[in-house]
Amino acid sequence: MADYKAPLRDVRFVRDEMFKFGELYSQIPTGEDATPDMVDAILDEIARFAEQEIAPTNVAGDREGCTLTEDGVTTPTGFKELYKAYVEGGWPSISSSVEFGGQGLPVSLGMTVSEFVGQANWSWGMYPGLSHGAKHLLEAHGSDAQKQEYLPRMVSGEWTGTMCLTEPHCGSDLGLLRTKAEPNNDGSYAITGTKIFISSGDHDMAENIIHLVLARLPDSPAGTKGISIFIVPKNNLDTDGNVADRNGVSCGSLEHKMGIHGNSTCVMNFDAAKGFLIGEPNKGLNYMFTMMNSARIGTAFQGLAHSELALQHATEYARDRLQMRSLTGKKNPDGPADPIIVHPDVRRMLLTIKSLTEGMRMMGYHMAYNAEIAEGHADEEARKLAEDMLAVLTPIGKAFMTEAGYEAANHGVQVFGGHGYTAEWPVEQNVRDCRISMIYEGTTGIQALDLLGRKVLGSGGELLKPLTKEIYKWSKAHAEDETVAKYAEELQALTKEWGEVTMHIGMVAMEDRDAVGAASVDYLMYAGYVCLAYYWAMMAKRAADALAEGTSEKDFYEAKLLTAKFYFARILPRTRALVATMKAPVDTLMDIGEDQFVF
Amino acid sequence: MADYKAPLRDVRFVRDEMFKFGELYSQIPTGEDATPDMVDAILDEIARFAEQEIAPTNVAGDREGCTLTEDGVTTPTGFKELYKAYVEGGWPSISSSVEFGGQGLPVSLGMTVSEFVGQANWSWGMYPGLSHGAKHLLEAHGSDAQKQEYLPRMVSGEWTGTMCLTEPHCGSDLGLLRTKAEPNNDGSYAITGTKIFISSGDHDMAENIIHLVLARLPDSPAGTKGISIFIVPKNNLDTDGNVADRNGVSCGSLEHKMGIHGNSTCVMNFDAAKGFLIGEPNKGLNYMFTMMNSARIGTAFQGLAHSELALQHATEYARDRLQMRSLTGKKNPDGPADPIIVHPDVRRMLLTIKSLTEGMRMMGYHMAYNAEIAEGHADEEARKLAEDMLAVLTPIGKAFMTEAGYEAANHGVQVFGGHGYTAEWPVEQNVRDCRISMIYEGTTGIQALDLLGRKVLGSGGELLKPLTKEIYKWSKAHAEDETVAKYAEELQALTKEWGEVTMHIGMVAMEDRDAVGAASVDYLMYAGYVCLAYYWAMMAKRAADALAEGTSEKDFYEAKLLTAKFYFARILPRTRALVATMKAPVDTLMDIGEDQFVF
Repeated sequence: MADYKAPLRDVRFVRDEMFKFGELYSQIPTGEDATPDMVDAILDEIARFAEQEIAPTNVAGDREGCTLTEDGVTTPTGFKELYKAYVEGGWPSISSSVEFGGQGLPVSLGMTVSEFVGQANWSWGMYPGLSHGAKHLLEAHGSDAQKQEYLPRMVSGEWTGTMCLTEPHCGSDLGLLRTKAEPNNDGSYAITGTKIFISSGDHDMAENIIHLVLARLPDSPAGTKGISIFIVPKNNLDTDGNVADRNGVSCGSLEHKMGIHGNSTCVMNFDAAKGFLIGEPNKGLNYMFTMMNSARIGTAFQGLAHSELALQHATEYARDRLQMRSLTGKKNPDGPADPIIVHPDVRRMLLTIKSLTEGMRMMGYHMAYNAEIAEGHADEEARKLAEDMLAVLTPIGKAFMTEAGYEAANHGVQVFGGHGYTAEWPVEQNVRDCRISMIYEGTTGIQALDLLGRKVLGSGGELLKPLTKEIYKWSKAHAEDETVAKYAEELQALTKEWGEVTMHIGMVAMEDRDAVGAASVDYLMYAGYVCLAYYWAMMAKRAADALAEGTSEKDFYEAKLLTAKFYFARILPRTRALVATMKAPVDTLMDIGEDQFVF
Repeated sequence: MADYKAPLRDVRFVRDEMFKFGELYSQIPTGEDATPDMVDAILDEIARFAEQEIAPTNVAGDREGCTLTEDGVTTPTGFKELYKAYVEGGWPSISSSVEFGGQGLPVSLGMTVSEFVGQANWSWGMYPGLSHGAKHLLEAHGSDAQKQEYLPRMVSGEWTGTMCLTEPHCGSDLGLLRTKAEPNNDGSYAITGTKIFISSGDHDMAENIIHLVLARLPDSPAGTKGISIFIVPKNNLDTDGNVADRNGVSCGSLEHKMGIHGNSTCVMNFDAAKGFLIGEPNKGLNYMFTMMNSARIGTAFQGLAHSELALQHATEYARDRLQMRSLTGKKNPDGPADPIIVHPDVRRMLLTIKSLTEGMRMMGYHMAYNAEIAEGHADEEARKLAEDMLAVLTPIGKAFMTEAGYEAANHGVQVFGGHGYTAEWPVEQNVRDCRISMIYEGTTGIQALDLLGRKVLGSGGELLKPLTKEIYKWSKAHAEDETVAKYAEELQALTKEWGEVTMHIGMVAMEDRDAVGAASVDYLMYAGYVCLAYYWAMMAKRAADALAEGTSEKDFYEAKLLTAKFYFARILPRTRALVATMKAPVDTLMDIGEDQFVF
C-alpha cells in the first residue's frame, strides 16, 4: 500500500513559480517573517509531519471510527496523541494573530499546511480545521473581552471550536432555525435546541470546545433576519478564565456516515446551556458569512486532497499491476504481462486524475492568493479587486473542486479493478470520504446559485469581470507565443462565449427567475473547466520557459506540457455539452408535475 | 424511509407497449405457457414478494454483513429464511428447462423476476443470481450424466452455483491463471489453487454449492488456450447423487468491501478438491463466454436497479423536504418553506435520474428481447440477427447502464443533502452497492475494448449495422411524425455521425493500435447516449399515440413526453463532448512517461 507523499514539488511549482507568493509576502505585513528560507523550512517540516505522523492514522481511523460513551466522544486510537504533537509543534497557530499568541504568518501559508494535513487524513484534519472558522469569526466580531477570554487558547490549539448551524429541519435554509436563546439575569443567555451534523462537535482531544451557535432571541424577526450567534463553551470558565464545570451542552448521538468515520459528526443537544452573544442581536448570519468563505475554500481543498490521493495510489498500482499486453506489442517482455499503465484507457484515467489534481491546485492557490491580498494588502484597491475575485472564485472552487475530486477518486478506484472495491487499499475509503465534500459547507447546487444568481447576475455581470478579464488579458498577451498560442486562442474564444452565455441566461431570467436555477450547476462547472484551461495554459507557458532556460527537472516540466495538451484535448471539450445544456429551455425542467416522477 | 415499490407500471409499458413481448412469446416454444394472464400473474406475485419479503432485508443486510465461522459463511439474519421462501415459491426455476424440472418459461420473463429481486436487495439477489450462470454453462456444455447429476437440484434452488475465475494476480487477464487440475485415477481431477472475489462463494442458505472453476491441466498450453473448466462441488456426492462428505474446498476469508455487504465475497481455497472436467480440455474460456454474456446483461440490470432506487427515494424526499422558497414565488404558502422539488436544480437531478432509469429499462429489455430470440426463435436468420445485436448491445448495456446507474445513485444522495450521507436513508448504501457494478463481470474499460475493438472494428463495422440500421430505420419512418419528427431528425444525424466516427477511429487504428483503447470508453458512452435517445424517441411516440387514443393514465404518458424532451435537451448534448474526445489524438495519452505522473 502506497504511503502518502506530500506533493512538495508541485506545491512549490504553484506557489513559487506560478503565483510567486514570495513577492506577495514582501508586500504584506504578515509576510515580513515569511522569508523564502522560513517558508521552505515550514513546508518541509509539515510535509514530514503529515507523511510520518498523520498519514498512518488515516486507514485505521476509518476502520475504528468514533464512539460515544457517557463521558462524550472517544476518537480513534492515536488521534489524541497526534493532536497533542500537532499543538506542540505550533501548527494550529501558524497564521493566527500575534496579538492572541499566533505566529502571524500569511494565511496562504496556513493553507499549504492544511493542504498536507488534509491529504494525510481528512477526518483528523477536521478537528483543528473547524477551529479556524470559529477563531476567525470570534476575532472579527467578538468583543475585546471575549477575544481575550477565548482566543489565546483556541489559537494555541489547547481548545478547539465548532460551528453549530444545521438543525433537523433546516440545512441550506437557515431561516427556519428554531434554537432559542433566552436572556439570563447575568447578561448571558440560555441556549436551548438541537443541532445536527456538527463536525468535531465532541471529542477527547482538547480540554474545552468552544461552540459558536446560531439561535433566536425572543421576539426576533422570523427568517434569516432574526438569527443571532452565541459562544457556548462545552465547559464553563471560572473567573480566571480556566475550565470549571460542564455547561448544558452534550453530544446526543453520532451520525453513522458513508465516510469520514474518524471525524465525530454529532447531534448536539443544548439544554439551557450558558451562551454569550457575539456582536449585535440578529446579525448572526452576516457574521457567519465571514467565516463561511474561508470554510468553503477549505472544503475546496478537500476535493484536491482526494484527487491527490487518487493520483498517488492509482499511479503506483498501474505501474505495478501486470495484466494483458499492450495493443502495440509487449512492453515488459520478460514478465508474464505488461503493467497496466501501458493501456491507453488506464492512461486516460490517470491523466484525467492528474490534470484535475494539478489544475485544482492552481485554483486552490488562486483563491489563497486573492484571500491573502483581501486580508492584508496595504492598497485598498488591490484588496477590493481581490475580494471581488474571491466572490466568484470561492463558489466555483468549492463546488468544482469537490465534484472534480469525486470524479478523480472514482477513477482512482476504477484503475484498481476489483481490488479497488475492497479495503485492501484506501481507495474506496477515498471515495467515501470525498462524497460529503459536495454537500457540506453549501451543496454544489447552493454554490451554483450563489455564483450565478447572487454574484454574477446579482451584480449585472460586474463581479465576473475581474476573473474573465484576467483570463482574457493573459490570452491576449500570449496570442503569439510559440508554445501556448493555440491555448490562448481557445481561451479567448471561451471568455467570449462565457460572456455571451451569461448574457443569454440573464435575459431569460428577466422573464423567468427559474432560469437561474435551471442553468446554475452547468454554468458553475463550465466556469470551472474554463478556469482549469487557463491554469493549464499558464503552467504550460512556465514549463516551456523552464525547459528553454535549461533545467535539471526536464521530466517534471515536460509532464506539465503533456498534461496541458491532454487537458485541452480530452477534458475541456466537456464545455461543449455544458454550453448546450445551460441554454436548454427552462420548461424542460419545470413542466413535469410533482406526481409525475414515479408511478 | 421509502419502501421499495416494484416499478410494475413502467415494466409493463416497456414489455407490453414498447417491445410487445406477448407477440414474441407467441412465436417461440418457451412462450407457449406464457400467456398474457400468466405473465401478469407472475409479475404481480414477484412484485409482491420483492416488496414485502425481500426489500425489508436490504438495509439490515448491509449493516450486519456476512461472517466467517469455522463452519463457513453465515449470511445476515433472515437471508436464509428468505431464500427458503424463494425456492418454495419456485422462483429459481422460472425460465429453466422443463427437462431438469424448470418451468420452461421465457428467459426474458426470468429477467423481470431478476429486475425486481435485484432492486429489492441486490446483495441477496446475487445468491440465486450467480446460480443462473453456472446452470447455463452446465446445460450448454456438461455431459448428460453431469446434467442429470447437478441440474435438477440447481434448477430447484436446492443447490446454488458459483463461477470461480479470478485469482490474486489475474482479473481481466485470465490467461495468467495458475490453479492446477491434476488427473486422479478415477477420471476426476484434483483442483489446487486460490480464487478470489468469488461472489456467493460460501453461505448457509443451501445444502450444496456447485463451483465452476477455471484451472490448468498439466502440459496445457500457456495463456488463454490452456484453460479448462471443472465442476467442484462444496460437498461430494454419493453414488445416489446425494450430499456426502466435504470436498477440499473452503472459504479462506471474506473481503471487506465498500458495499454489497450482504453478499459473501470469498477467497476460495481449493486443496486437491475433487473436480470434474466439463466438455473438452482447454476449452474453458470458450465455455465461459456463453455464460458471461448473460451475466453481463444481469449486471447491466444492476445499474438500472440502483437508478430505480435513487428515483424512488429522491422523489419521495424532494416532495417532503421543505427548504427555501421557489424563485418564482411561494408554492406552499401555508408551510414554512416549499418542498425542494420546486427548485429547478433539484428537478434537474430528479429528471436526470428518471430519464436514465427509464431509458436504461428500455435498453435492458432491448437486450432481453434479443436474448429471447437468440435463444429460442424458430427462424435461424432471426436468431443470427439477434445474436449480432446482442454482441454489441451487451457491452454497451453492461458498461453504460452501470456507469449511468452510478451517476443516478450519486444524484440520489445529492438530493438529500447531508441526510443522504448518513445511514438514516439507504441512499449512501445505494452508492456503495452500485460502485462494484462498473468493475465486476468485466470493467467498463474491458467492455469498451470488447465493443470497439473486438466487435465493431473486428467485424469491419458489420456487427454495428443491425443496431444503427434499426435506429436509422425508425428515424426514417418517423421523419414526418408530428410529435417525434424533431427527435427522428437528431437520430438520423447521430447514426450518420456514429458511422463517421467509427470510420475515423478505424483509420487511425490501422496505423496505431492504441487508437482503439484511446477512444473506446468515450465511444461506448456515446453509443449508450445515442441508444437512450432512440429509446426516448420511441417512448415519446407511444405516449403521444396513447394520449391521442384517449387514456385514463394521462399523467403517466405525459411524463414520458416531458422526460423525452428533457433527455434530448439536457442529457444527449453530452455526445458533443464525447465526439470531440473520441477523435482526440492518441499521443495525448501515450506520450507521457510512466514516471512522469507523480513527482
